[in-house]
Amino acid sequence: MRGDGGPTVTPWEVEGEIDYMRLIKEFGTEPLTDDLVRRFELLAGESNFMIRRRVFFSHRDLDKVMEDLEGKRGFFLYTGRGPSGPMHIGHIIPFYFTRWLQDRFKANVYIEITDDEKFLEESRGLSYDDVQRWSYENILDIAAVGFDPDRTFIFKDTEFIGQIYPLVLKIARKVNFSWVRAVFGFTPQTNIGMIFYPAIQMVPTMFERRRCLIPAAIDQDPYWRIQRDIAEGMGYYKTAAIHSKFLVPLSGPAGKMSSSKPESMISLNEDRASIRRKIWQAYSGGQPTVELHRMYGGDPNVDVAFQWLNFFFEPDDKVMREIEEGYRSGSLLSGELKEMLIEKVTKFVEEHVARREEVKDLINHYLRDGELARLMWSKKFE
Amino acid sequence: MRGDGGPTVTPWEVEGEIDYMRLIKEFGTEPLTDDLVRRFELLAGESNFMIRRRVFFSHRDLDKVMEDLEGKRGFFLYTGRGPSGPMHIGHIIPFYFTRWLQDRFKANVYIEITDDEKFLEESRGLSYDDVQRWSYENILDIAAVGFDPDRTFIFKDTEFIGQIYPLVLKIARKVNFSWVRAVFGFTPQTNIGMIFYPAIQMVPTMFERRRCLIPAAIDQDPYWRIQRDIAEGMGYYKTAAIHSKFLVPLSGPAGKMSSSKPESMISLNEDRASIRRKIWQAYSGGQPTVELHRMYGGDPNVDVAFQWLNFFFEPDDKVMREIEEGYRSGSLLSGELKEMLIEKVTKFVEEHVARREEVKDLINHYLRDGELARLMWSKKFE
Repeated sequence: MRGDGGPTVTPWEVEGEIDYMRLIKEFGTEPLTDDLVRRFELLAGESNFMIRRRVFFSHRDLDKVMEDLEGKRGFFLYTGRGPSGPMHIGHIIPFYFTRWLQDRFKANVYIEITDDEKFLEESRGLSYDDVQRWSYENILDIAAVGFDPDRTFIFKDTEFIGQIYPLVLKIARKVNFSWVRAVFGFTPQTNIGMIFYPAIQMVPTMFERRRCLIPAAIDQDPYWRIQRDIAEGMGYYKTAAIHSKFLVPLSGPAGKMSSSKPESMISLNEDRASIRRKIWQAYSGGQPTVELHRMYGGDPNVDVAFQWLNFFFEPDDKVMREIEEGYRSGSLLSGELKEMLIEKVTKFVEEHVARREEVKDLINHYLRDGELARLMWSKKFE
Repeated sequence: MRGDGGPTVTPWEVEGEIDYMRLIKEFGTEPLTDDLVRRFELLAGESNFMIRRRVFFSHRDLDKVMEDLEGKRGFFLYTGRGPSGPMHIGHIIPFYFTRWLQDRFKANVYIEITDDEKFLEESRGLSYDDVQRWSYENILDIAAVGFDPDRTFIFKDTEFIGQIYPLVLKIARKVNFSWVRAVFGFTPQTNIGMIFYPAIQMVPTMFERRRCLIPAAIDQDPYWRIQRDIAEGMGYYKTAAIHSKFLVPLSGPAGKMSSSKPESMISLNEDRASIRRKIWQAYSGGQPTVELHRMYGGDPNVDVAFQWLNFFFEPDDKVMREIEEGYRSGSLLSGELKEMLIEKVTKFVEEHVARREEVKDLINHYLRDGELARLMWSKKFE
């Protein structure tokens, strides 16, 4: 997905203003249609605002997941985190969506902490110990999301490799350098660990003999493209996926949200004052003066505060509609819009920090002692 | 080591008549000189006929191993087996030499069963279960060699990966595709498991913070060449190696000894009649008739029976000298020479089969319960 002057979207890099309909074309995925959404809401027994608003906008085989649900075969969920630094708000949102799916369908959730990958990415310059520290911190953040402790398994690759290596090998045997070069843009300078790594990321899609559904940002899709080419030949299901957009950076739609650019994002332990300052400085779709704003109104399409509320922080469609109308008409000022977001984000972060403290004991459940975790550690995947 | 019309010598292929002095040049190793041999014999307190006769003919840093011995720092031994089929006599000989080294120096021995590698080599067409079965059979053969149960650790990669993966990653991060392509002749069609595998084979050289000595056939040397380029930067010793020649196939020096060509080798459970038949049919350096042989004598340099006796089966130099003189002069007939070898090989195989039965209980010691095995399973290599 490089080299044509458009935005860069690979599993390791996302930058530039993104045309999501074009991504659907480039990645070869399917758009989430109104029909699919209605059918999914019926099965879930509830509407989800992130689907409704197409924050999750694209998919692979979501229709087959629904057939499996209708046929009582069920499915399982798989997502993950590359522990390369502190998690910010953009990282945690897909986990809340995954939890919603788990709640609605009583599905098992597998969460891979790809400490091997983040160590192998030389450009990050992380030591093995760095990655281990971030793994622990990130697992705490993920545990704070509130997954079902008996239906959720969180694992670090370096710890769980012993149980999965034979299956990793079976995948690796089916994928050659030429293929990963084409899919991931690897070069002869790519280290042999990175070249092998895709086999590791594919394994959890084969943890159960039923369909896997992966909720993740669309940049991870190349892995699933390979998985879908080899899975059935190995006696497993092609994985399904549901793809989210990226949360727009505070700096505006052209930039990149990254923990290495603190002004672009809100971290999960950001303090009140800092949240206020960052959102106050965020890219706005409003007019330069109150007078002009009252006269011409603001543009919600580029306004970060509006986008964040719509993406995650204001689930109520009626409220969002009022905000949009008010902002467009000029009756709602940029400052007022930002105050709304500041309040929501502050509350979210404070609650997250509090839950994070509470779950310190619970993480052993996700890692080792919960029902699903115990089952996983008793298995060898061959 | 390909492409110039000479013999093919890579870790996966050995074919053609071999010029060992040329291999020393091509692999960039050192010949085993008389001085080195004398110094080594002094340290070992015993002469070893396989060194004396240059069955082990080449090395890397054997002088440094001796310095370490003189400085009481010691060393450890590492060798391995790719479990792709039944082991034949050519496979087991280096293990006897390794055991001799262990006995003389009370050294730890690590024996890697590369079940991952043999599964990943697609051209072998082995299923995962095939490789597991051969692993078990091969481990029994290796256990029959009689290593010290408390100083020897035998491990399968697919079982031990959980303990070594972080260290594997640290190696993998330092090696790129370009490098393994140059060293092993990998291509874009090579699967990503094979590309990654060299990192796994290098890890045991870092099991201890002292020098590793690897007794192995010279075709494995490319791995050590990479190891020696990266080890010190990682805080470990460059590995030392002592390289053996290949046992000449029964079919003669131009062929290849392989379990897939049963007439070229003697398996470790070959029956009496079959040993007799195969050796009787083996390539001979004698003359076409007894009369001519008595007149012109035989050529021990190409005679398989002579080569096998010299390589392993007749440790007594005086006897070998008499055989050589008799054969050259024509007083010793090809048939008589073959009878000598038949007797030795039959005895060796029968004893091996008997020991193999006895060690069935002992293998758990090598794998799990012995002193060194327990220590290894308690560690995580990072």
